[in-house]
Amino acid sequence: MLSKNTIKHIQSLSIKKYRTQFLEFIAEGEKIIHELLLSDIHIKSIYATPQWLDKNKNELQKADEYRAVNEIELKKISNLSTPNEVLIVCKIPKNELNIDYLKNELSIVLDNVQDPGNFGTIIRLADWFGIKNIICSKESADCYNPKVIQATMGSITRVKIHYEDLVSLFEKLSIQTKLPVYGALLNGKNIYEQKLSSHGIIIMGNESNGISNEIRSFIKQPLFIPSFNSNKEIDSLNVAMATAIICSEFKRLNPINR
Amino acid sequence: MLSKNTIKHIQSLSIKKYRTQFLEFIAEGEKIIHELLLSDIHIKSIYATPQWLDKNKNELQKADEYRAVNEIELKKISNLSTPNEVLIVCKIPKNELNIDYLKNELSIVLDNVQDPGNFGTIIRLADWFGIKNIICSKESADCYNPKVIQATMGSITRVKIHYEDLVSLFEKLSIQTKLPVYGALLNGKNIYEQKLSSHGIIIMGNESNGISNEIRSFIKQPLFIPSFNSNKEIDSLNVAMATAIICSEFKRLNPINR
Repeated sequence: MLSKNTIKHIQSLSIKKYRTQFLEFIAEGEKIIHELLLSDIHIKSIYATPQWLDKNKNELQKADEYRAVNEIELKKISNLSTPNEVLIVCKIPKNELNIDYLKNELSIVLDNVQDPGNFGTIIRLADWFGIKNIICSKESADCYNPKVIQATMGSITRVKIHYEDLVSLFEKLSIQTKLPVYGALLNGKNIYEQKLSSHGIIIMGNESNGISNEIRSFIKQPLFIPSFNSNKEIDSLNVAMATAIICSEFKRLNPINR
Repeated sequence: MLSKNTIKHIQSLSIKKYRTQFLEFIAEGEKIIHELLLSDIHIKSIYATPQWLDKNKNELQKADEYRAVNEIELKKISNLSTPNEVLIVCKIPKNELNIDYLKNELSIVLDNVQDPGNFGTIIRLADWFGIKNIICSKESADCYNPKVIQATMGSITRVKIHYEDLVSLFEKLSIQTKLPVYGALLNGKNIYEQKLSSHGIIIMGNESNGISNEIRSFIKQPLFIPSFNSNKEIDSLNVAMATAIICSEFKRLNPINR
């Protein structure tokens, strides 16, 4: 039996305020939990059906504690319309951003991406393309939102997400590194005709407003994915789609890590 | 005032069975409705606030009828958690598939794509890349599902969606045309190293199971987007992401329509 307080605590973790207060997040779904248990993320609690616990005996010692729960309890703590057999509570890892480390890497900067589905998809894309760091403006969606965690399909365990003041980040980057700064802009240059570096920063903007003026000024190489449709009504690609195509272009031209 | 019957009828259109029976679908959202009103899709009814009707006077004659509704009524007929100012009921267009027409085109075949968000995103991508036809297996999600319509952001007015028995379609295609048939497969060839034609068929598969065995046998050129991450846990890209990258590659190499 879960106590009322435990249920209330777990439920509170679907709200950012409480995730920040407790430095904890929840995850659900067989695949994501499997990857979290394999990762170096600190697992506080496993809440699972007796069947799941029995089936996954060898993984239980990775958590501080595990508790058998019935379906009614699982429904109470779950964020899914059809709860899975298991839910875990994890500690939010401390991802410290080391600017030196970015020097030889390709990294993504998100300027106020808000939709959890888009954000989760971008994390999954970064993982696929071997991009290890995503740096977000402080107003961006929270990567520990259960919907983001769900959409990453486990990639959250491999891609490091940092929240930074982007203006001071770019100021530091321009002083301490020679990293090329690319950005997706509607008036950018045709991406298929540009030289793209193996390392650098790719800035992607908000779903409605794109990259803010303040951040735009740091872009040295504005990029645009041309439309192949002459109809003028199509205004833009969704930010996750654009990220997919841009990452594909960078990695196609610099397949060093493959 | 809307009658109970009218409300019930509009509500029923969020269910496929009734859309098929009445050959009608609903759309919401400023941008999508604007594009539907510009398109040659037959608009049956506009249900909008008096303010919206007043602001859009010149577009009202495109519909068979329009009705002023209040916020309570709009909430009843809307599929959105925060209803917009307007909802329209449209006739489902008859999209007849002409195989001859595909001969010089690049087209997408969807073998049982189920998620409305993925499907809507793929329609939007097709539009961006100037792909005019998407042919779906009969088990695929319904493109007139309100969630798909929403995710297309208006592209549904420009991309023709066909539902066909795929086996007989591919049999006909192989007899009547020389169209190259590409498919996204995990054991395909590195897409960045292939010759991609300006015309042909690209097959994308179901979210969990990929392309069915029956349809797989028609693929002459299996394609794969390589991962740039050596970690083996990453199993695949989401189908909409993969479609974005594949379309980008085809059009980058064949920019004829740009």
